[in-house]
Amino acid sequence: MTTPLAAKIAREYGTPCAVIDMDKVERNIARIQAQCDAAGVANRPHIKTHKSPALAKLQIEAGAQGITCQKIGEAEIMADAGISNILISYNLIGEEKMARLAALQAKADMTVAADNATVIAGLPQAAKQSGRTLSVVVECDTGRKRAGVETPAEAIQLARQIKASDGLRFAGFMLYPTESGWDEAQRFYDEALAGVRAEGLEASIVSTGGSPNLKNLGKLKGATEHRPGTYIYNDRMQVAAGVATWDDCALHIYSTVVSRAAPERGILDAGSKTLTTDTGGLDGHGLILEHPEAKIARFAEEHGFLDLSRSNTRPNVGDVVRIVPNHVCVVVNMMDEVVMVRGDEILGTLPVAARGKLR
Amino acid sequence: MTTPLAAKIAREYGTPCAVIDMDKVERNIARIQAQCDAAGVANRPHIKTHKSPALAKLQIEAGAQGITCQKIGEAEIMADAGISNILISYNLIGEEKMARLAALQAKADMTVAADNATVIAGLPQAAKQSGRTLSVVVECDTGRKRAGVETPAEAIQLARQIKASDGLRFAGFMLYPTESGWDEAQRFYDEALAGVRAEGLEASIVSTGGSPNLKNLGKLKGATEHRPGTYIYNDRMQVAAGVATWDDCALHIYSTVVSRAAPERGILDAGSKTLTTDTGGLDGHGLILEHPEAKIARFAEEHGFLDLSRSNTRPNVGDVVRIVPNHVCVVVNMMDEVVMVRGDEILGTLPVAARGKLR
Repeated sequence: MTTPLAAKIAREYGTPCAVIDMDKVERNIARIQAQCDAAGVANRPHIKTHKSPALAKLQIEAGAQGITCQKIGEAEIMADAGISNILISYNLIGEEKMARLAALQAKADMTVAADNATVIAGLPQAAKQSGRTLSVVVECDTGRKRAGVETPAEAIQLARQIKASDGLRFAGFMLYPTESGWDEAQRFYDEALAGVRAEGLEASIVSTGGSPNLKNLGKLKGATEHRPGTYIYNDRMQVAAGVATWDDCALHIYSTVVSRAAPERGILDAGSKTLTTDTGGLDGHGLILEHPEAKIARFAEEHGFLDLSRSNTRPNVGDVVRIVPNHVCVVVNMMDEVVMVRGDEILGTLPVAARGKLR
Repeated sequence: MTTPLAAKIAREYGTPCAVIDMDKVERNIARIQAQCDAAGVANRPHIKTHKSPALAKLQIEAGAQGITCQKIGEAEIMADAGISNILISYNLIGEEKMARLAALQAKADMTVAADNATVIAGLPQAAKQSGRTLSVVVECDTGRKRAGVETPAEAIQLARQIKASDGLRFAGFMLYPTESGWDEAQRFYDEALAGVRAEGLEASIVSTGGSPNLKNLGKLKGATEHRPGTYIYNDRMQVAAGVATWDDCALHIYSTVVSRAAPERGILDAGSKTLTTDTGGLDGHGLILEHPEAKIARFAEEHGFLDLSRSNTRPNVGDVVRIVPNHVCVVVNMMDEVVMVRGDEILGTLPVAARGKLR
């Protein structure tokens, strides 16, 4: 079964193809902005999900106070498009990056994160080159074992180092609590805050992160902002986390069934080069709306291998199906553009302008 | 520990960065061409590994008879660069793709693969539009449960359909035997060949595939060509398969250690957006040449999380390390360019011109 829109998309653009419904995009933006407003927490969306200045501007127009980027290359695209308040939530190291950070400071109010002394020691180079003070938040790990200092004492020590560094300003803390770890985050933050206050410092930014954490919005007393990313499109992980419905999933991959090698097997033209092997911890690699019982079982680069053994409906070769990806951010990074629709009307393409910015 | 070249790469380009050593690239090209020549089998390299017309031309200059692409978009890049003999080893469906295939036929000798009647039924549209006969090989599955017909009888039936279709020419068979399944492939092929001969057809192309299968080169009696891809760069999977040494690995990802959150942990600036979550069935996500006992244990998009618990040497924050990826083809697809070196000399960048061609 191929919907009329899917047939039109396949004819005009070919498959596999990412299609975003702008009605849903705008609804998602408005809904989460309202949640942030209600919780009294500023919204600083992470642009890694859409990688598009046009969508970042929609988020800002809706009330977001600025954006979050992970890479300098992403921030450059956003600053060049006129976005003026950018947090790079990442340890930046090396003279090549410091020169680019200095150039960014001339265009936008930049804040960067750091979780160690070596990173902080390099940042004054950017501040000096730009002639502008650089804001630095200390990244704190409160249970994920990702980036971030593991203890409040280390956070306080780094705040002290930032204070003592030419051209740097201690701006606060960046946290990314686990979904069940907000009490732990509160204890960490309270102790770190008391410590920096004893140094005569204040935390003007206390930033929490993650779309799945939207259900914990406002739980951290003292938090000033949240950095959700995925909420603009949503995906199978967001639905599994209970923060979105299938109807909130604004991006679908349209894919053609190119083979039915055997009765219980099938092959999609969307493989790991489109959907990626990132499972997000879920079983299977996406939900096929037309055949929700079918399993996208494994991938080659250009083949999505279907296990149809438990599916009461089975596609034919040539069918164009719609897939909700497991993890939409990594899927968007695989493509140069997405097709915009409103309901059944095709609006045109939107470049994924900050795609593939590794550096 | 950072090598002088790594320091130079980081300074000039930043990290993460893919670096290819052209001495090794040229040596790999020459070595496998010599193996094909010795086996009496033509070489039709799969360009999915490098996605660069410049490197495809090196392969052709060394003796390759043509190239293999998986997507029309890849073939367009290659044909525009003047490459004239192209196999698209994929089921192509839909009028958008047929129009592009017809345009390709005007530029290059095109052969396409098909494993079902629906795909074959669509192909005459391209032949008609181009005014040129289109060569079609029947894809046969001999054990992988990927694409391809499962029985010789189906292969013969599709050959008959091709013969009866306006503008199509039956060109032969495409196989991708498992590494231990060459006897099975031989039986399949012999039976299919006898069947098409009974129809008055000949198989002018009998194509086998896979770099790990280089050790089986020439084993299929009747094979006319092989489609290796990965051999130009090699990777951890090729070394594990016993067809390359670490010294044959021509592409390294240069990555900076950006955090050492705890004594037994570390973070690289190469995450799944650079190295991908494709493990290739191996433990860990790449070999770090400077710290071969360290494990790249898991990823976030921009974080490579190191498990250093079994590593007797541990990197410092700011070190630039070199990584041999598990599966180099998917890594190359993540980036717009690679940096070329010869030994310690930087030659410049090479665009990954056919990167991200989903369609």
